[in-house]
Amino acid sequence: MTALSDGEATVDAAPAREHQQAGTTDLQALFAPRGVLVVGASADPDKLGGAMARALSAAPVPVALVNSRGGPGMHTTAAEAADHVRRGGGSPDLAVVCVPAPACADVVEACAEQGVSAVLVCAGGFSEAGGDGVEHERTLRQAVARTGVRLLGPNTSGFFVPAAGLRASFVPGAAHLRPGGVAVVAASGGLNHALAFGLARHGSGLSLGVGIGSGLDVTAVDVLEHLAADPGTRAVALHLETVPDGPALLAAVRRTTRRLPVVVLVVGRHDVSGFAASHTGALATSWRTTRALLRQAGAVVVDREDDLVTAAAVLAQTRSAARPRPGAALVTAQAGPGLVVADVLHEAGVHVPELGSTTRATLGDLLPPLTYQLNPVDTGRPGPRHGEVVAAVAGDPAVDVVAVYALTEPVVDLPAAVAAARAACPVVLGLDGPSDEVVPALEAARSAGVPAVVGAQALARATAAVAEDAALRWATTRGAETSRASGAPGSPAGDGPAPVPTVAHGAWDEAAAKEVLDALGVTTPPRQLCHDRSAAHAALDALATGGRAVVVKVSDATIVHKSDVGGVHVGIRDHEALDVALDALAPLGRQPCLVEQMAPGGTDLVVGARRDPVFGPVVLVGLGGTATEVLADVAIAAVPATRAWLEGLPEELRSAALLHGHRGAVPVDTAALAVVLERLGDLLLANPDLAEIEINPLRATAAGLVALDAVVLTQPHASPPDEPRTRTGTRRNDT
Amino acid sequence: MTALSDGEATVDAAPAREHQQAGTTDLQALFAPRGVLVVGASADPDKLGGAMARALSAAPVPVALVNSRGGPGMHTTAAEAADHVRRGGGSPDLAVVCVPAPACADVVEACAEQGVSAVLVCAGGFSEAGGDGVEHERTLRQAVARTGVRLLGPNTSGFFVPAAGLRASFVPGAAHLRPGGVAVVAASGGLNHALAFGLARHGSGLSLGVGIGSGLDVTAVDVLEHLAADPGTRAVALHLETVPDGPALLAAVRRTTRRLPVVVLVVGRHDVSGFAASHTGALATSWRTTRALLRQAGAVVVDREDDLVTAAAVLAQTRSAARPRPGAALVTAQAGPGLVVADVLHEAGVHVPELGSTTRATLGDLLPPLTYQLNPVDTGRPGPRHGEVVAAVAGDPAVDVVAVYALTEPVVDLPAAVAAARAACPVVLGLDGPSDEVVPALEAARSAGVPAVVGAQALARATAAVAEDAALRWATTRGAETSRASGAPGSPAGDGPAPVPTVAHGAWDEAAAKEVLDALGVTTPPRQLCHDRSAAHAALDALATGGRAVVVKVSDATIVHKSDVGGVHVGIRDHEALDVALDALAPLGRQPCLVEQMAPGGTDLVVGARRDPVFGPVVLVGLGGTATEVLADVAIAAVPATRAWLEGLPEELRSAALLHGHRGAVPVDTAALAVVLERLGDLLLANPDLAEIEINPLRATAAGLVALDAVVLTQPHASPPDEPRTRTGTRRNDT
Repeated sequence: MTALSDGEATVDAAPAREHQQAGTTDLQALFAPRGVLVVGASADPDKLGGAMARALSAAPVPVALVNSRGGPGMHTTAAEAADHVRRGGGSPDLAVVCVPAPACADVVEACAEQGVSAVLVCAGGFSEAGGDGVEHERTLRQAVARTGVRLLGPNTSGFFVPAAGLRASFVPGAAHLRPGGVAVVAASGGLNHALAFGLARHGSGLSLGVGIGSGLDVTAVDVLEHLAADPGTRAVALHLETVPDGPALLAAVRRTTRRLPVVVLVVGRHDVSGFAASHTGALATSWRTTRALLRQAGAVVVDREDDLVTAAAVLAQTRSAARPRPGAALVTAQAGPGLVVADVLHEAGVHVPELGSTTRATLGDLLPPLTYQLNPVDTGRPGPRHGEVVAAVAGDPAVDVVAVYALTEPVVDLPAAVAAARAACPVVLGLDGPSDEVVPALEAARSAGVPAVVGAQALARATAAVAEDAALRWATTRGAETSRASGAPGSPAGDGPAPVPTVAHGAWDEAAAKEVLDALGVTTPPRQLCHDRSAAHAALDALATGGRAVVVKVSDATIVHKSDVGGVHVGIRDHEALDVALDALAPLGRQPCLVEQMAPGGTDLVVGARRDPVFGPVVLVGLGGTATEVLADVAIAAVPATRAWLEGLPEELRSAALLHGHRGAVPVDTAALAVVLERLGDLLLANPDLAEIEINPLRATAAGLVALDAVVLTQPHASPPDEPRTRTGTRRNDT
Repeated sequence: MTALSDGEATVDAAPAREHQQAGTTDLQALFAPRGVLVVGASADPDKLGGAMARALSAAPVPVALVNSRGGPGMHTTAAEAADHVRRGGGSPDLAVVCVPAPACADVVEACAEQGVSAVLVCAGGFSEAGGDGVEHERTLRQAVARTGVRLLGPNTSGFFVPAAGLRASFVPGAAHLRPGGVAVVAASGGLNHALAFGLARHGSGLSLGVGIGSGLDVTAVDVLEHLAADPGTRAVALHLETVPDGPALLAAVRRTTRRLPVVVLVVGRHDVSGFAASHTGALATSWRTTRALLRQAGAVVVDREDDLVTAAAVLAQTRSAARPRPGAALVTAQAGPGLVVADVLHEAGVHVPELGSTTRATLGDLLPPLTYQLNPVDTGRPGPRHGEVVAAVAGDPAVDVVAVYALTEPVVDLPAAVAAARAACPVVLGLDGPSDEVVPALEAARSAGVPAVVGAQALARATAAVAEDAALRWATTRGAETSRASGAPGSPAGDGPAPVPTVAHGAWDEAAAKEVLDALGVTTPPRQLCHDRSAAHAALDALATGGRAVVVKVSDATIVHKSDVGGVHVGIRDHEALDVALDALAPLGRQPCLVEQMAPGGTDLVVGARRDPVFGPVVLVGLGGTATEVLADVAIAAVPATRAWLEGLPEELRSAALLHGHRGAVPVDTAALAVVLERLGDLLLANPDLAEIEINPLRATAAGLVALDAVVLTQPHASPPDEPRTRTGTRRNDT
């Protein structure tokens, strides 16, 4: 068992100097300024400009206050204030702007003239408010472009860097925040504070806390890039409401997770768009897609902000090595809470392996015979040898993370008992008890370098996060080594991939779409495109062999839903039935028809590739059928993706059991399915005119995957291939 | 707006005396003993018997310690100890037994001889351990039966009644628990403690905390009955792992929720049965069924134990009046956390109405124009008139509960601002901030009678719980007033219900099953049972009219899955096709066949009535189709149920959108569906031999609901109707 936890738990103690010296990103002036101007400052602490001035006065760099109307301690111009900062030995890097929206652009210009290169704008009242706000935003945007300053906001309550004593926040309570290893990157200034205070209750300090606000210039992407190089940060807690630039976000998360765990909460499962728009000026992006793609990029995705706090706090202290399927173990002193933990781990899809015989023999010596010892291990009340029990479990070769639960009791020093086991693999301690006992125990755990949380639920969520992080590290590093060249068994593409065909803008009927599939190496049924009755009857003779029937379909690129207009006739075995079908097609016009051999029964899937408006090229897979569609049970991945990720994709479906031969159904060859998804992705990436290709159904038969119907949608596209279409206002494109 | 919150928030202050005087249930000797014996006591506080002796020594009634080997302060017999208690002015009502399993039965007998009428047995090692434990449990059970004592346990860490100073717990931290209005009834002693400590962190005290353990005698049902009459209890937090007697539990929850909110966590979503069995000696019951039926009985069902704590703590302080569809409003000072709250409320299905014009006019005067005011109301930083904002929202006629969120800031006294609004309807306050500010604010809220929680998530969960409790109160009281006689529109039963037909044990083929449906008033297609070819051809002539085809099915009660054996042939319109079908049926034997008119297209449902092994008679409804089955998307209700509950049942399906005419599908008449479910339930209740009846599919057509196929399963049954089949070991019967 490789352990990454050793020595990491003390990072919260003194990252301050490192942080201030790091400064290699262009957000240096924002997060580590050598001097600060507060513009719109006030002597009244109840006012925004007063609260901000008071908060920043604690910074160990020169701070100058600006108010055009003057007042005690106020400079009346940015120039005066900048001079004051310089005379104090600083440099006016950052301006914190507390004036209303209409005045912001001028303030930015004036500050930039004085050498300011970073600006925080707190006010709202820009485009999210409509009306004049749209114009205020335009002029502010122009000022940023003209001056080249980096601007955080508008519409945010600011940021804090506790190790640097820097609080650009008008919430006075931010003064209580301590330095530490977690960075909070929140869409909302309010949530930045809420998460920071939540982490503080967990005993976790912050390396940085940022509320992005409207994200006019500095976005979560910029802050992630900054953090990826910040030695003081050990984990990132990311909160997202909208995603203005999907591919950039995914790239930033990929880069960041190479070094740091990133835990993310995506808000906006439900459409509260009226309220959301009032807040952010943009509608929510797709909740499901955002979550799926962030996970693929390596981020641990959580459902609740309290779980975000727990997971980030624990992952900042301990991280498991990359594993394809990390094993979690539970050592509990009380069975009831242990069942809660086990239930959550199962729900989260965490592997809870049975312990090996060596471990069980050791446990047999240490524990009374009545207790359950396979995993979970139910110890009963902890005894003096509790540490040996935990160490034995942590040392099991199948175990990559251990959760230890107990009520606080005087019998045993739990943090000490757990600390020894950390040499083998990460161990998380969960405690319940009266505050008078839990608080000192948490402090002791902290001192001993043991990540500790309160309650069974938090323990389970933290343990699941450590396991998920380890699995994603494997998928984004080691899993990526399974290259395309490895050739999945059963690949319809044969030994090597065929060249990617060209899809130009135009009208694509089913026959043409299937030719593309053929060229991709995706199996389609034998068929003939027939332009008259005699050709159709000849096709029947050729195809209705070996007991197979044929299906006759109208072939017209303008008819997308053929069944809905009576354009599909199945089960045709003889010429009489064929004539009936052809007669029925006649009212649809004089198009050709497609006569196709009917495929054997099987399990129907829907697969496709399309351009997500936020994230660009993606592939999707789901089960066929209306219920599945209504339940939105679709798995999605950005492309290009690793073969291993695509193979695992169908497992994300709630209906995944259907893929494994439920009730005698044909099981799905997921390796072959991954190749189909990969090829569809390749097609999309290579053809900028291709808007979407969908195979519905792709039938899993005993003989393999067969594409029974396909739709190709195109649109003229001027950009070079692979360039995602970004937009400032994103839209919700699924539920 | 009716409000039930007034004056209730102070109940935690002094319920002690009330509680001790209540004592009308037969658990009086257990929870309010006049004297206590600790058998197996020890002077060593690290031992179970020592910890228990120490904990009980704080009780304000005489306590006597028993250890057969003697020692300082020990009596050597129960008789001596009982004398000691009597001489101290007490009565030896309760024996706390800390001896190992093999000795427990004798101790119970000896204590009962001394007048003890309640016993707590902490030890494990009974039937859950197998081996000799089974015999120990048998003898203990005999001792209980012979003596008539009430026994709590075995295999529990005990209980506590803080107001009475009574702690029968070997966890020393229990000494910190304060009296209050929440009763914890936990399957597990460990979770009893964990929940109690969690409530304490919330600032909530306890009226009672009980770990049921193995439940050999005293069960959660007994404790609920006790609590239903306990004036000191304002809310119940119920934790369940298994349900030994389903109908009794439902009845107890129904009775309790008439007076008190009950919040329940059901553990066991996933099969961790090996571990669970080691703990409880029984496999988990059906998680989904248990949750659905508890909700129907009036309990607020939660997913996590931290949410259980939040909901119980808040519902002990405030409760909304019964409402068919309670409206929740949110007043937030920060938009980001507000979006989190809004998302959770939507996910929980809570109605968040737009505020009325009067309210909006008031808010327009109070708030700056840029803020969102429809609901949620985004105030920006709270100002001095924040209380008026909250009061205006609380006074809106559409609002039954208000959630108020803010970061702690010195600008406004939030608890005071919220307190004034409580006159209109329940208001819950959610805070985030540094502990130095949050803790005093929570204390202030407590003093002001305002329920307060920490964080947006907890606020949302608490608000959802208050709304759910109000909706369930309506459903279980006012909703029950919509009697069967009211006659739902579109009822297939016509003006009055038909008499319930008789279903005797025997073999029921489809034709017979459909006759039962006809008798129930459930529409079935026109059909003829045909014993020879000529009858079948005559049936074809009679039924294949008006463009309709017929279906020909084998009629054999021994063939349950007719399609699987080639026993169903559809779409037959002429005599030739009929002969082909009859030829195909021939290999199945010489049974008659059913010739039936094919129904028009529609939305297929599966409905049924069966006897749940834990809970007795239930009805179920789901969408047709394999995916739905795999996703276990089935809604379930105990019968008899109110018409209103059955009408709402399909809304619980995740695929509910399909019922409302998704993509041109035929919408389902839920009123008529409720009548079908009610009649199936009536049939089950009236016929003890009927094990199960399933209609699959019940097709919703434009002309109404039609039962296309039905299965009746019977088994001889000696018990009178309606008596549920109980068992001590329950089994998991779905996932």
